[in-house]
Amino acid sequence: MQFSRLLDELIRGLQILPGIGPKSAQRLAFHLLKQERSQGAHLAEIMQAALERVGHCDACRTFTEDSVCSLCLNEQRTNARQLCVVESPADILALESSGHFSGHYFVLHGLLSPLDGIGPDDIALPKLQQRLAHGVYDELILATNPTVEGDVTAHFILDIAKRYDIAVTRIAHGVPVGGELEYMDGTTLGLSFSGRRSLS
Amino acid sequence: MQFSRLLDELIRGLQILPGIGPKSAQRLAFHLLKQERSQGAHLAEIMQAALERVGHCDACRTFTEDSVCSLCLNEQRTNARQLCVVESPADILALESSGHFSGHYFVLHGLLSPLDGIGPDDIALPKLQQRLAHGVYDELILATNPTVEGDVTAHFILDIAKRYDIAVTRIAHGVPVGGELEYMDGTTLGLSFSGRRSLS
Repeated sequence: MQFSRLLDELIRGLQILPGIGPKSAQRLAFHLLKQERSQGAHLAEIMQAALERVGHCDACRTFTEDSVCSLCLNEQRTNARQLCVVESPADILALESSGHFSGHYFVLHGLLSPLDGIGPDDIALPKLQQRLAHGVYDELILATNPTVEGDVTAHFILDIAKRYDIAVTRIAHGVPVGGELEYMDGTTLGLSFSGRRSLS
Repeated sequence: MQFSRLLDELIRGLQILPGIGPKSAQRLAFHLLKQERSQGAHLAEIMQAALERVGHCDACRTFTEDSVCSLCLNEQRTNARQLCVVESPADILALESSGHFSGHYFVLHGLLSPLDGIGPDDIALPKLQQRLAHGVYDELILATNPTVEGDVTAHFILDIAKRYDIAVTRIAHGVPVGGELEYMDGTTLGLSFSGRRSLS
């Protein structure tokens, strides 16, 4: 069944959002129209502004509407000598909420995937290389996900880093806290074993 | 952790959508910024247009940007003598997809709920009464949900309809197709029993 043209268009438009199918889009559209409309209008405005003005931080490439993001400008991190490479800005958020890292980040906005035509230039590896070339960092921490693309990307970056005097590490992969060995997949258990640490 | 001001505002703004919490809002925001931005910009535009221009159909009160909706203008329904009362435009969609009804609708956009301060005027019952008074309809079908508010509203409308020469019916409630008696709640089973029909 068709609604009015505008409503149909709104329902179609909402389906560009991840995880929103035709039924959810319809629910969202009705909700927007039913509630206080000024809220929806504000959302549309801020969406427009964000899409126009939010770009990448010149230093770490995370999303920001300023030329350099607040994390890179943070005075407590000015002299940081660790650089952590992540796939997306959401990863920065996860790492920051753990509170275990106070160095700089570099966001790839993707991972190497030759089959999808994503090469080094698409994830700004030349820019990462520039940062390494400046020699400010002692350690490069690779925090890409433990997937095929994440592994490939990590190894590619390792090759780049070898040209500079910098220690390269990768975050540990294994059984998560609260996880049960019984239900872990073999690859995770393998990583968990090969990454075991001496307790002495 | 805070992102940039605009990004934070976008994430907060997206949380007015139903079922979207802080984490999902963040995911939506990143997705909007990451993909082709023209799509997002189009969504923002269409949202603004819809919020400004979509109103209620003069006849049935469903959402439309025209004065009368396409369903009410449908020539095959011009002489319909049945009027079906539903809570929301989404209910029209569900009933239309079943293909069992070809009369007119009336959308309440809510249900009577004295505790929440929702009275007859808030759900346009005077307008429904006007339509009944014209005497065009033979049957008034109450299709409000079988909840406390739905029942109260149905009874209230029944009282109004009694003043006019019109048959009032309510859609059947009982075990849904594919449902199992074993897992049905007592109230549904009760309705299912009291609504049993002769097979002869």
